[in-house]
Amino acid sequence: MAGSQRKRTSRATELPTGPPPKAVVSRLSLYLRELQHLIRNDQTTVSSTDLGQRLGFSDAQVRKDLAYFGQFGYPGIGYRCQELHAQIKRIMGTDRDWPVALVGLGNLGRALLGYKGFGLQRFQVVAVFDADARKIGRMVAGVAVHDPRDLPKLVKQHDIRLGIIAVPAESAQDVAEQMVSAGIEGILNFAAVRITVPPRIRQASVDLAIELEQLSFAVVNGLRNPT
Amino acid sequence: MAGSQRKRTSRATELPTGPPPKAVVSRLSLYLRELQHLIRNDQTTVSSTDLGQRLGFSDAQVRKDLAYFGQFGYPGIGYRCQELHAQIKRIMGTDRDWPVALVGLGNLGRALLGYKGFGLQRFQVVAVFDADARKIGRMVAGVAVHDPRDLPKLVKQHDIRLGIIAVPAESAQDVAEQMVSAGIEGILNFAAVRITVPPRIRQASVDLAIELEQLSFAVVNGLRNPT
Repeated sequence: MAGSQRKRTSRATELPTGPPPKAVVSRLSLYLRELQHLIRNDQTTVSSTDLGQRLGFSDAQVRKDLAYFGQFGYPGIGYRCQELHAQIKRIMGTDRDWPVALVGLGNLGRALLGYKGFGLQRFQVVAVFDADARKIGRMVAGVAVHDPRDLPKLVKQHDIRLGIIAVPAESAQDVAEQMVSAGIEGILNFAAVRITVPPRIRQASVDLAIELEQLSFAVVNGLRNPT
Repeated sequence: MAGSQRKRTSRATELPTGPPPKAVVSRLSLYLRELQHLIRNDQTTVSSTDLGQRLGFSDAQVRKDLAYFGQFGYPGIGYRCQELHAQIKRIMGTDRDWPVALVGLGNLGRALLGYKGFGLQRFQVVAVFDADARKIGRMVAGVAVHDPRDLPKLVKQHDIRLGIIAVPAESAQDVAEQMVSAGIEGILNFAAVRITVPPRIRQASVDLAIELEQLSFAVVNGLRNPT
């Protein structure tokens, strides 16, 4: 880790400025998952080389990414897993609970409601909305189903800042607008259509076919897994 | 585009060698989605600058990524959308149909079975498997539900190379092993647990919380969307 120590010293005078590129923030999520895995396996420290290798990145990439946010390594030790994990959680904003609104209680909505991965990162669906009158008023997986017209009330009541769209494509834009006017700040869209929101609203779309496509590329090109 | 023309000429002698980094292949999927969007809006050409800007990448990044696979731009024109789209489909292996096996017919499995985004990229779930005897033999969304023990037979029958795991975490490893011994070459794992497969098998895991985490980061840091 002598090299990384030297790098850390020189970097102190040239910390990156401005918002980090999206790709850097994406990799933070991967570092976080890997650290969670290491901690579960009782590993206490990890070098940038090891952390990078597990994910297919170089040690320089790991150090450069983390340098956007501060100095986290120790000379001769590397990163302390628990500490770096806590720091990345803080950076990502997931060191606190995030109440989430889910709109659309079809198969996907039900699957998302039962998705354990959200809770692991402190995302909690606290209110579900569906336009189907037969669903409104019911409890599903311990969460009450509401009329979408009650979105503003429940967003205020639960201090909800994030919303998930799990409705069919033709309703997605309407739902996005309802979320925005209810005060939601970030929208995760599972509908197979683009939504348009004001620039102040953060949005992300999930295209599950991308993952299959990455696999088909690897299969067609005879590539092995990076590990 | 004069600059890009010069770059293209100089690049001809220094095409990247070896398998492209995972990040490059991930970006190909994003270029493909953006090209599909442009084509739907009747745009015929796009510059590397415009394509990059739409995704938050630099023009140099776009050109460098594509240079792994060949020369696709035209001086003074940029990329022809239809042509580049077809080329990336070919590179990704999605210029053909991919029959897919889906194991696990809970809420997530049903959602994936109805997911329109797969079909758009020529991924087709042709056989569903579930250990629940009450589901076996039924048709769901036009696809027959089979006993997982029939995986080898159906993989051979439909020439299936890709499989999706949508079972609870505790069954995921067993299912992965059944898929591998049935001859499946690529596995997409939705279970919230890591699976271990031989190195010749390609695998990817989907962690839906990552997308929410990227949103929470943007909300906490007051970042706007890149566009």
